[in-house]
Amino acid sequence: MESADPSLPKLSTMTLRLVSENNFPTAAGLASSAAGFAALVQAIANLYELKDSPAELSLVARQGSGSACRSLFGGYVAWRMGSRADGSDSMAEQVATASHWPDMRALILVASVVKKGVSSTSGMQQTVATSGLFAHRVADTVPKHMAQMEEAIKNKDFAKFAEVTMRDSNSFHSTCADTFPPIFYMNDVSRAAIRAVEAINAKAGKTIAAYTFDAGPNAVIYYLEENTEAVVGTFSGLLEGVTGWKDGVQGLKSGVVLDEAVAGLLKTGVSRVIMTGVGEGPTKTEEYLVGEDGEPVKR
Amino acid sequence: MESADPSLPKLSTMTLRLVSENNFPTAAGLASSAAGFAALVQAIANLYELKDSPAELSLVARQGSGSACRSLFGGYVAWRMGSRADGSDSMAEQVATASHWPDMRALILVASVVKKGVSSTSGMQQTVATSGLFAHRVADTVPKHMAQMEEAIKNKDFAKFAEVTMRDSNSFHSTCADTFPPIFYMNDVSRAAIRAVEAINAKAGKTIAAYTFDAGPNAVIYYLEENTEAVVGTFSGLLEGVTGWKDGVQGLKSGVVLDEAVAGLLKTGVSRVIMTGVGEGPTKTEEYLVGEDGEPVKR
Repeated sequence: MESADPSLPKLSTMTLRLVSENNFPTAAGLASSAAGFAALVQAIANLYELKDSPAELSLVARQGSGSACRSLFGGYVAWRMGSRADGSDSMAEQVATASHWPDMRALILVASVVKKGVSSTSGMQQTVATSGLFAHRVADTVPKHMAQMEEAIKNKDFAKFAEVTMRDSNSFHSTCADTFPPIFYMNDVSRAAIRAVEAINAKAGKTIAAYTFDAGPNAVIYYLEENTEAVVGTFSGLLEGVTGWKDGVQGLKSGVVLDEAVAGLLKTGVSRVIMTGVGEGPTKTEEYLVGEDGEPVKR
Repeated sequence: MESADPSLPKLSTMTLRLVSENNFPTAAGLASSAAGFAALVQAIANLYELKDSPAELSLVARQGSGSACRSLFGGYVAWRMGSRADGSDSMAEQVATASHWPDMRALILVASVVKKGVSSTSGMQQTVATSGLFAHRVADTVPKHMAQMEEAIKNKDFAKFAEVTMRDSNSFHSTCADTFPPIFYMNDVSRAAIRAVEAINAKAGKTIAAYTFDAGPNAVIYYLEENTEAVVGTFSGLLEGVTGWKDGVQGLKSGVVLDEAVAGLLKTGVSRVIMTGVGEGPTKTEEYLVGEDGEPVKR
């Protein structure tokens, strides 16, 4: 573009100053690096007016943080393993838009804002090298779960979505614990969150909540909007002093009675909650200019 | 014997009164049922003067509690899976006598005397039915570890013994966590014990301690007598008020500095220690008679 139009600023000759901010705890297993790298790649693509598709950009984002490739899309996204040994065809694609199944909600119980001892990327490399069970997960468990999950999303089948979500989380953390030396992302608070989800589903007589844990102790609990009272109400009454509740949810009563030890662990271990849902990919928000002192200034 | 010698008491026509006592916490993942069933089978075999070998008795004991089959022997014992579908050839055999490698020691950190929510036997059945990784553990991991362990014991190779012990414990608990719903025998105190063992080995510059966990949160830490100071000293100074220390070990100083969180978890979570080693199988101790009131009386 610059060679075709000499009036354009010569951006390709300038260095970039990157300023990154986030409103999630960093390095706590809440996908902060995925969000950050996806935003970075999209921002640079916007700056240079690149014509690459999100799938092509996801190949670049993946090199910063594996799961960043998923974050370039909105809605429900699959990260395809690919078949090339060098990983060059390992990229993400959208399985469904957010509007296909808009009533999906997520309640995140932030169990720790302590930085991880092991980064997700180096943890995964250790797991690949030393876990005897990992190869089986890759060859057998993940492809099966991926197919089941796509089907569940396509059919908006929450019970199936939930079961696959929970089984795959269990399987992932199993291979982490099978690493040598073992990697433990979950702690006793995480396990209490699992027991609470089991209690919610038992009370409902069907599966209305699903837990999953990424590379950290924080529980991500999926539920449908219609089950807010039964799911969110179980935690909001218990965790009254905790920040992050949306207006109105603290008065909800689910009637789920938690085991005393489970309730105690959640009360002492959850420092913050995040209530969110399935949203869009990277969005251009505010634009900055470089001020006279070299610091960013809002346009 | 009774039909050949009419003067013998007709024991075969009498009912048995069984009185079982143990000095281990029951149902806490400390093999109390294995010890109890092995003692029961051996006591009945003694009473009837059965000529069955320990291997044959192990077949019977296994039906009470799987791991009881191992407890009929002293020393280092292997539980052979067998090849028959009905499990009728699944039995234990001695790999080495206790005197072959007499300096093996075990320090048990009792992290919980709370009874388990799930018995080991029913937990294992759930794992077999629902864990996708379990089949791989059975087909691949366990046979490999069994062969490596026998070789390590034969050669008195502690570093290899330790590595296989730790890897197999990790693998077992991984398949428990991969069960649906997941089974967690270990807790944050267990994981702190793992980090402490890693710190001991790091300080020694070689592997002098190994952790393993059975179906409960209690850590069993293996070490050789010559490394008592480095291994036991790490815990005895920290856990001063805890019962179970043998004379003299509380003054030992290992110089291992534990992470503050690890030390804190061990201090608050370990209620008792047991110091033991590799010993003999069931031993006839005291004999009882039935008193006039029907209660057992020491002979």
